[in-house]
Amino acid sequence: MSTRVGIIVLSGTLDKVMPAFMLGTTAAAMGMEVGMFFSFYGINVLHKDKLKELKVSPVGNPAIPMPFPVPQFFTILPGMVDLTTSMMKKMMKENKVPDIEQLLNQAKDLGVKLFPCNTALQLFGYKKEDLIEGTEKPVGASTFLNFVAAAEKPIVMNF
Amino acid sequence: MSTRVGIIVLSGTLDKVMPAFMLGTTAAAMGMEVGMFFSFYGINVLHKDKLKELKVSPVGNPAIPMPFPVPQFFTILPGMVDLTTSMMKKMMKENKVPDIEQLLNQAKDLGVKLFPCNTALQLFGYKKEDLIEGTEKPVGASTFLNFVAAAEKPIVMNF
Amino acid sequence: MSTRVGIIVLSGTLDKVMPAFMLGTTAAAMGMEVGMFFSFYGINVLHKDKLKELKVSPVGNPAIPMPFPVPQFFTILPGMVDLTTSMMKKMMKENKVPDIEQLLNQAKDLGVKLFPCNTALQLFGYKKEDLIEGTEKPVGASTFLNFVAAAEKPIVMNF
Repeated sequence: MSTRVGIIVLSGTLDKVMPAFMLGTTAAAMGMEVGMFFSFYGINVLHKDKLKELKVSPVGNPAIPMPFPVPQFFTILPGMVDLTTSMMKKMMKENKVPDIEQLLNQAKDLGVKLFPCNTALQLFGYKKEDLIEGTEKPVGASTFLNFVAAAEKPIVMNF
Repeated sequence: MSTRVGIIVLSGTLDKVMPAFMLGTTAAAMGMEVGMFFSFYGINVLHKDKLKELKVSPVGNPAIPMPFPVPQFFTILPGMVDLTTSMMKKMMKENKVPDIEQLLNQAKDLGVKLFPCNTALQLFGYKKEDLIEGTEKPVGASTFLNFVAAAEKPIVMNF
Repeated sequence: MSTRVGIIVLSGTLDKVMPAFMLGTTAAAMGMEVGMFFSFYGINVLHKDKLKELKVSPVGNPAIPMPFPVPQFFTILPGMVDLTTSMMKKMMKENKVPDIEQLLNQAKDLGVKLFPCNTALQLFGYKKEDLIEGTEKPVGASTFLNFVAAAEKPIVMNF
């Protein structure tokens, strides 16, 4: 039976975007059809420049592992978002987890459809030209829902 | 084949609640049966007064677009939650995205079932009388799961 | 028709982990097969020591109910994460909501499969011996996706 995996990416932080792609590429490698819908902050993943600025924040996330004990109070200080971000990137690299650009390329190679949400483009004031190559054309939620629900076994994940 | 979309709303911030309703109403407009289950902070969406106080926070979200560059440190200052919230509401309005009250009404008009979680009501100390009109009666998770799983093609989304 | 519920736990905060287990155990009690995949911060739920340190943060969550009005600014102060956490635990206890250890045991008793993500173990530098008893052996995303997609009616939820 045909299985389709629809992945909704609303978050623009690396600790959500990375797992979204890891599950999406895994599903595609297993032979499932995969479509990813990027809306709200998630639209940044498909934006040429913003893609490079995706971060992780330690603020409000008491579960984040820090290289040394950091009282919650200090997580708000200048530099802490960059510290957490570079720490996570280093952790990924040391463990040979692909980075976000590599995951994007893997997704495209595996035929994962990347749907930019046109409402999100509008809200953020982004243009089609701002998007990376290889995405579908911008669509509304109905196109994404149609894609998923057309399968005999639709699966949706949110990040 | 019958498709049912179950939407679980655990968040009480506008940047999660708005997409939940946008996807829910779109699915309903496409002819799918939609049920939304409001639990944890999400129960505030169905609360007469709290509904009007839903906010967006810039804190701990380095992906949020700000009208001017704001160091993470300043996001915690008094007034910043209100600033981000009114900024997002303005952005929505300018782009003719319906506001939360309009989305709620659209959902009801389209026959979307709104299930308040009775554990959440208990936890927050809310009464049935505090809820807006037109919701289902408060239920447990099993009623919601039954609703979704009864379909031939169940789809669940989380916000 | 066979229904399988796959629950992805990426968050390590109580306000996500508790609902994940509440929905998972409910689904299992209703006769559905349930598998939970713990990755990223979620891996802490299966870690003997980290499990006891799961918290809730008021920072960046304007929807969290506080025992008294707290300006956003103060949520970052030392002690506030602990205050919010103990407040939520008390609220749960008073309303007879099981705590996280009880939910874990219920899940095991009901035959819920607990899958630790091996990439997360690697990233966090945890060892198999650090995990609680009764989990499946560490797996990749493909094992989890196989588990879910093998059902006639697969349902996935994310927390």
